[in-house]
Amino acid sequence: MEQHSNILKYKHLGIYTQNENVVYMRNDCHVCISEGFEALTRIRVSRATRSIVASLNVINSDILLPNEIGLSDAAAKKLNVSPNDMLYVSHLEPIESLSHVRAKIYNQKLNYDAYNHIIKDIVEGDYSNIHLSAFITACAGDRMDIDEISNLTKAMIASGKQLNWNKEIVVDKHCIGGLPGNRTTPLVVAIVTAYGLTMPKTSSRAITSPAGTADTMEVLTNVTLSADEIEAVVKKEGGCFVWGGTAQLSPADDVLIKIEKALDIDSEGQLIASVLSKKAAAGSTHVVIDIPVGETAKVRSMEMAQKLKTRMETVGNAVGLNVKVVITDGTQPVGRGIGPTLEAIDILKVLNNETDAPKDLTERALLLAAELIELSGKVVKGKGLETAQQILKSGKAYEKFLAICKTQGHFSKPVLAPYKIEIRAEKSGSLKRIDNRKIAKLAKLSGAPQSKSAGILLNVHLGEQVEENQLLYTIYAESQGELNYAMEYKNNHMDIITIN
Amino acid sequence: MEQHSNILKYKHLGIYTQNENVVYMRNDCHVCISEGFEALTRIRVSRATRSIVASLNVINSDILLPNEIGLSDAAAKKLNVSPNDMLYVSHLEPIESLSHVRAKIYNQKLNYDAYNHIIKDIVEGDYSNIHLSAFITACAGDRMDIDEISNLTKAMIASGKQLNWNKEIVVDKHCIGGLPGNRTTPLVVAIVTAYGLTMPKTSSRAITSPAGTADTMEVLTNVTLSADEIEAVVKKEGGCFVWGGTAQLSPADDVLIKIEKALDIDSEGQLIASVLSKKAAAGSTHVVIDIPVGETAKVRSMEMAQKLKTRMETVGNAVGLNVKVVITDGTQPVGRGIGPTLEAIDILKVLNNETDAPKDLTERALLLAAELIELSGKVVKGKGLETAQQILKSGKAYEKFLAICKTQGHFSKPVLAPYKIEIRAEKSGSLKRIDNRKIAKLAKLSGAPQSKSAGILLNVHLGEQVEENQLLYTIYAESQGELNYAMEYKNNHMDIITIN
Repeated sequence: MEQHSNILKYKHLGIYTQNENVVYMRNDCHVCISEGFEALTRIRVSRATRSIVASLNVINSDILLPNEIGLSDAAAKKLNVSPNDMLYVSHLEPIESLSHVRAKIYNQKLNYDAYNHIIKDIVEGDYSNIHLSAFITACAGDRMDIDEISNLTKAMIASGKQLNWNKEIVVDKHCIGGLPGNRTTPLVVAIVTAYGLTMPKTSSRAITSPAGTADTMEVLTNVTLSADEIEAVVKKEGGCFVWGGTAQLSPADDVLIKIEKALDIDSEGQLIASVLSKKAAAGSTHVVIDIPVGETAKVRSMEMAQKLKTRMETVGNAVGLNVKVVITDGTQPVGRGIGPTLEAIDILKVLNNETDAPKDLTERALLLAAELIELSGKVVKGKGLETAQQILKSGKAYEKFLAICKTQGHFSKPVLAPYKIEIRAEKSGSLKRIDNRKIAKLAKLSGAPQSKSAGILLNVHLGEQVEENQLLYTIYAESQGELNYAMEYKNNHMDIITIN
Repeated sequence: MEQHSNILKYKHLGIYTQNENVVYMRNDCHVCISEGFEALTRIRVSRATRSIVASLNVINSDILLPNEIGLSDAAAKKLNVSPNDMLYVSHLEPIESLSHVRAKIYNQKLNYDAYNHIIKDIVEGDYSNIHLSAFITACAGDRMDIDEISNLTKAMIASGKQLNWNKEIVVDKHCIGGLPGNRTTPLVVAIVTAYGLTMPKTSSRAITSPAGTADTMEVLTNVTLSADEIEAVVKKEGGCFVWGGTAQLSPADDVLIKIEKALDIDSEGQLIASVLSKKAAAGSTHVVIDIPVGETAKVRSMEMAQKLKTRMETVGNAVGLNVKVVITDGTQPVGRGIGPTLEAIDILKVLNNETDAPKDLTERALLLAAELIELSGKVVKGKGLETAQQILKSGKAYEKFLAICKTQGHFSKPVLAPYKIEIRAEKSGSLKRIDNRKIAKLAKLSGAPQSKSAGILLNVHLGEQVEENQLLYTIYAESQGELNYAMEYKNNHMDIITIN
């Protein structure tokens, strides 16, 4: 109907809006007038056989002509448009799955088909940020039971690619974040693949933290590999440590996580579905989950941790994963470095068995590697730790680490940031408390993870006796401005480290 | 800290995004680089003593230079900027009230202070659409008890202007929408002000319907008046029918309602707070609420209506309003016209006591006017209807209506749309069902309310015997394209009117 009149010429505006699709049209363009489109109307935009849903922003200046149409960068990429392409716009048919979201808002229990329908539409990009926020909120606050979490997880697995390694046992690990510097993953990969297990590890970049595993490993090697390249590395070395962003595993998760970040919530149901869907889609069979518990960690009480453990293991079972949850100490940062480069330095020290390698990081990595080795059934229960220790001590883990890095592209040594400032104790006493959230915030203000070599190098741990003027930590930054930012925050927050 | 470097020159981009504040900066501008701003970062933008919070869209084309900054139209208006003004941008301090939103997401009960804090920040524009959607969702699905609804209502009243008419009794009415053509408000205003009561009626434009009272009245008179002009009209005539959009009454409501529209939900707590906060802020003392109940109305069952009635009356009492709820028939449209002009024609027929005036509209208007007259205590219970009838029959209501219109600026006669198509019965039988939602959708596709004279003129009512080929309704439109749109929808939906 009137299709000929709903065609506009694409002009590149170069506006980046993250995941949200935005379409730009003039208020006096014939399509806006005849269709009654107003700002924020959700519109279908098509080119050839592709189409997307986008929110309208109305232009009343000459950055567009009345017969032109613009798109946000993500939307333009999805439609694969070039300047002067003709685009067809139309009213959006109702998004049927929103009726399930409304049902969830009104406290109804959703079945697999409903979650599947919602997740499919989210992956299609049909949901606006308003819709996504409503879905996340409606699922938060203990409003999903175990069946629902399982169904959401299954729907998220089905929404993207699913890898198959043709191995009986494929191991993986995941840590329920919140602990700065807790960079055990590269160590665990090195140990268990040196032992002979298959561990095709995909990691995320930082979401709210000063470094994700992918950020840290990017200091040492190339982490952006295609699916084919990942397959080749794993075939050769038994494992990898790559960024999971291009793998299209559980793509709905990537969309939802950005909204959760904006809301600063991480609800139990979404958390479980997020973690387990990524693991299952990546072809894992045996997974160890690390839940650090501490007052300023993500999980703050043993009770919450136990509940999460039970649910993780139950949902894991429902989606065909053998899940073992390990509850660990989350009262302070792990290792010395917080920030990609500083964490990479810690990792190399552990792998090289250096005398000043951080003991806590070493022990955690060994514990998790041991759990995976035992979970795989290859050694008897209780013998995992000894096996892991032998592999690390012998240098086999380091050899394997280097081999994987080189197969991924190269191995590069970490280089410290040019600007730094040392923070010293203002009084003597016992080190009582380290605020994980605030020290992470400090590292972020210094520039991490965008500035790879920025961050914090910790010199002290909980319970230690500290003398006045003793070095507590060093802040590293890549510019004086960022160093100033971090210092301003530090000076306004005297409880980052508490000495009694 | 580094403030001098955080200054950029304003360039007008002319991008309208409704209520959401958006700030545009180049990816290679020194501020984005030094501050680590990324797309969707929430940023504070200041000029002189004013400041706003806006979401960042990152520009990578030459619509901005690296030292320039753009704003969405609403944001530019709030900051009162002109081209080449220098704007200062900074990191956003945490929005403290979001902790209350998170508490609500996690099912906690919020007190007055928490709602007040949230509503203040919403009015300030500090919440993104993601935050607003989470707040609305967390409050939906029966998650607010009666104390919370009262506290939210009080917070919304306090968030904007509060009118005071210096009268002991100021009446108002409200209908819980969902019934096409139910345009009783102008009739009720005419009758009760002719009777001598004070009724300073502010109305909304259509949100999801083919016409709001303000849209309909705009066909006949000027409805966009300043606060001073409204006061003058009410002082002279005892009442008015104006658009409430400029009155700054319960401004948070205007923000929340747009998000509710996008989600297509209208949760009980928000609905009650929305309606009663507007009435209280407008200085009303006695309010009649009309709740039409029907399968395709907004309230679908008598049980829901009774619950809503109790809560409306309780919350009204808590905020100092004398509220009477009237539950009415919501099974079919009211009157003949659906759309601003067609409804205006119905209104004039009723006021002129014409023989073909829609009886159902007349009866509803008389019922509501009678309830208000009785609620005011000026006549004994049971005598309100007789009083209202006399005023309408005598022509006094019409006189008053004309007088108010003229005092508001002018009185203009409605003119029908140039394009129309008649829809006739395909078979004989009894008229079994009219789908309120679908006939409203049909009127909207024909162009209402943007095209004022577009809409539907109904020729039949429920229960009537219809002959094959008898005229059921006429679709009016201001362009052939819109008429085609409506016809396409009509041809795809055979259950708009059901004949057995």
